[in-house]
Amino acid sequence: MSLANLRTHYTSQINPEELGDQKVTVAGWVHEVRDLGGICFVVLRDREGRAQITLVKKKTDPELLEQARKLVRESVVSITGSVKPEGKAPNGYELIPDEITVLNEADSPLPMDTTGKVEAELDTRLDSRFIDLRRERTTSIFRIRHEVLKAVRGYLTDNGFIETSSPKVVATATEGGTSLFPITYFDREAFLNQSPQLFKQILMSGGLDRVFEIGPIFRAEEHDTRRHLNEATSIDIEASFCDHFDVMEVLENMVAYIYEQVIENASDSLAVLGVELKVPAVPFKRVTYDEAIEIVNANTDEMLNWGDDLGTAAEHTIGEHVFKETGESHYFIIDWPTEIKPFYAMPYEDNPILSKGFDMMHRTMELSSGAQRIHIPELLVERIESQGLDPEGFEFYLKAFRYGMPPHSGWGIGCERLVMTMLGVDNIRDVVLFPRDRRRLSP
Amino acid sequence: MSLANLRTHYTSQINPEELGDQKVTVAGWVHEVRDLGGICFVVLRDREGRAQITLVKKKTDPELLEQARKLVRESVVSITGSVKPEGKAPNGYELIPDEITVLNEADSPLPMDTTGKVEAELDTRLDSRFIDLRRERTTSIFRIRHEVLKAVRGYLTDNGFIETSSPKVVATATEGGTSLFPITYFDREAFLNQSPQLFKQILMSGGLDRVFEIGPIFRAEEHDTRRHLNEATSIDIEASFCDHFDVMEVLENMVAYIYEQVIENASDSLAVLGVELKVPAVPFKRVTYDEAIEIVNANTDEMLNWGDDLGTAAEHTIGEHVFKETGESHYFIIDWPTEIKPFYAMPYEDNPILSKGFDMMHRTMELSSGAQRIHIPELLVERIESQGLDPEGFEFYLKAFRYGMPPHSGWGIGCERLVMTMLGVDNIRDVVLFPRDRRRLSP
Repeated sequence: MSLANLRTHYTSQINPEELGDQKVTVAGWVHEVRDLGGICFVVLRDREGRAQITLVKKKTDPELLEQARKLVRESVVSITGSVKPEGKAPNGYELIPDEITVLNEADSPLPMDTTGKVEAELDTRLDSRFIDLRRERTTSIFRIRHEVLKAVRGYLTDNGFIETSSPKVVATATEGGTSLFPITYFDREAFLNQSPQLFKQILMSGGLDRVFEIGPIFRAEEHDTRRHLNEATSIDIEASFCDHFDVMEVLENMVAYIYEQVIENASDSLAVLGVELKVPAVPFKRVTYDEAIEIVNANTDEMLNWGDDLGTAAEHTIGEHVFKETGESHYFIIDWPTEIKPFYAMPYEDNPILSKGFDMMHRTMELSSGAQRIHIPELLVERIESQGLDPEGFEFYLKAFRYGMPPHSGWGIGCERLVMTMLGVDNIRDVVLFPRDRRRLSP
Repeated sequence: MSLANLRTHYTSQINPEELGDQKVTVAGWVHEVRDLGGICFVVLRDREGRAQITLVKKKTDPELLEQARKLVRESVVSITGSVKPEGKAPNGYELIPDEITVLNEADSPLPMDTTGKVEAELDTRLDSRFIDLRRERTTSIFRIRHEVLKAVRGYLTDNGFIETSSPKVVATATEGGTSLFPITYFDREAFLNQSPQLFKQILMSGGLDRVFEIGPIFRAEEHDTRRHLNEATSIDIEASFCDHFDVMEVLENMVAYIYEQVIENASDSLAVLGVELKVPAVPFKRVTYDEAIEIVNANTDEMLNWGDDLGTAAEHTIGEHVFKETGESHYFIIDWPTEIKPFYAMPYEDNPILSKGFDMMHRTMELSSGAQRIHIPELLVERIESQGLDPEGFEFYLKAFRYGMPPHSGWGIGCERLVMTMLGVDNIRDVVLFPRDRRRLSP
């Protein structure tokens, strides 16, 4: 059997006027069978839409009719026939079948409902992701994710960034800390990398000037929230001869570009999700850490002291405040205390208790962290030590700073959070095909 | 200090005619200092090329001249000055400096030579990748890799493939076998995934129709060769309602497109490497497994029996034979014995001892494996068992076949092998920024 003749068209590609008498073959899933006695409708579903197959009792070969009536929902079929205009059917046509081939019959009952009439629990949907994906809503999310990644790469490539890959198996923790998954690497202990941070910085010493990476990161944090994953997709850049403000500009312009591209290329998917996207206005508002503390203390019972990190509740307060003021969901928090930023964040030369680190926020959560990095090796060693880490474990990294490391800056943004905030999705697991969290390791 | 004024131009962007009296600032590494007494030349290097800085003793401020003379090689500097046409200098101009700022002085001696006069050992270069990358040859490889990935995504996206991501942390081995790195995942044992295979197949049941993924794969094989890595980048596709011949066409056309794009977009990098690329002619020759065995037995002392796998020496013999016959480096080997292909490869319906698996070969090595996959759940269970594996461990995968799995096919191609065969690079470690092998876990 050659499969070349299993499908001549997607359901969305059929135009009865253009086709005339030409036969077509569609292939997909039996979405629905409606047997009204004198007439039987089969709805076939493929990635691009649906087609109505119409069998009129009086005009149809009885065997074919019988076959159609007995089709099991969600079975995979290939159907050949001729096309007639039909305004009430999906895509404006109906297919009068000559032949129906069942390629793979589905068991029943299905592990979950596909019609969308019954909303299944998230865990049920994730357990049966292969069924969940047959719902237009779910597929739409991943079509949009595809457009997001395409826009990211397009934007960064057009702006002189080179795509690179860093190793996921590493000998040292990126930022110290304990949130590491240990691996047995032959006879040695290794870890899954938490971030490309140290590697993309090394590439700056190598002179690659501007690099980006899109890849998995792994964090062994025991979170159990709607916005944390233990394996996520990170979008990272690093750029030489740039300060934090330069890369903040890259970031906000990239986000705006992504929104534009999604609106332009995925309007159907947005419509399925009922999302009306507005391109965020650039530049995003810059809120200083000091102002952020003030906003929280003025608007809530929380009393934050200078030097405190901002928790989820504080972030919400600030996000709502900024939204009320600007009508925009995206903003930056800048000028953070050096002590609560990672060791590689550059302190301001004239006021080293403040750092050139920044966070890019959505009204509902943090999306991205970045900074101008320390490029002076002595200062870097000092900062590693002051955070209680051992510079010896970072020798492979520090070495790159001693032989001509340029000033540089960068950021990382979580792909999933970018998509979920764009689409107003409530749980991050909804925007990952096969999420990994403390409890979930399968499928 | 704002960094915005550290660089106004890359060295390649400077055109003395256009600039006139306008000052420029370049930033990069001190590539060379040549002090001839009455005149001192500093060569500054950035990602895009080199610039000659000229200081004539009689016309230059003595302090600035002294500073230039004392510049330490490979230090990072920013230099502002005016531009004069100079036919003998790189890019046709020289820069007469007003100001030289040393941003980070390099230690000396350097851990390896950067001039290319002394060719360092691979291990030395990998230990100091940040220095190795300052050689034009090395950077050119990664510029080309960037173009390769861009071309892959462009080709697949234009052909209806949606980008997806599969988890790297998994509970089960993809193809059984023992080449797995174990992870401690909270209180459970998990593994690093060897391939997106099972997941991309599940997406076919989900109706995504055509998907691709570019991401890391992990194999705990104790190889120590010039063409194996323990962490590699795999380019994977899966397509529904397609047989193996359909996806072979996607593969060969994609490879030809990549070569075209690299020629078009990376001619400078190809020139640095001295590589003259020829776009492979499509279709690639199809050699059956039977013919392959015959070629080996007729041309070497090796006596292969039907059912034997093809080793490295056999692959070379076949590759040379095909090259002599066609003048082309790429070809397919098709119609493999079912027994030596993975359990998910579809046997031919009319002759099940042969499978619809294929390999796509380069004259020098295997590049890609693919197949039409088994989509019938009963047959799949049978094949899993016949390979001595336990279907229970594959339940999350088998489930997706019971409720409407379409016929589908796919392949995976190693990004590194694609790049190394394209460029005639001898060791796969040369085309990975930070390779991972049995002995190397750092940097």
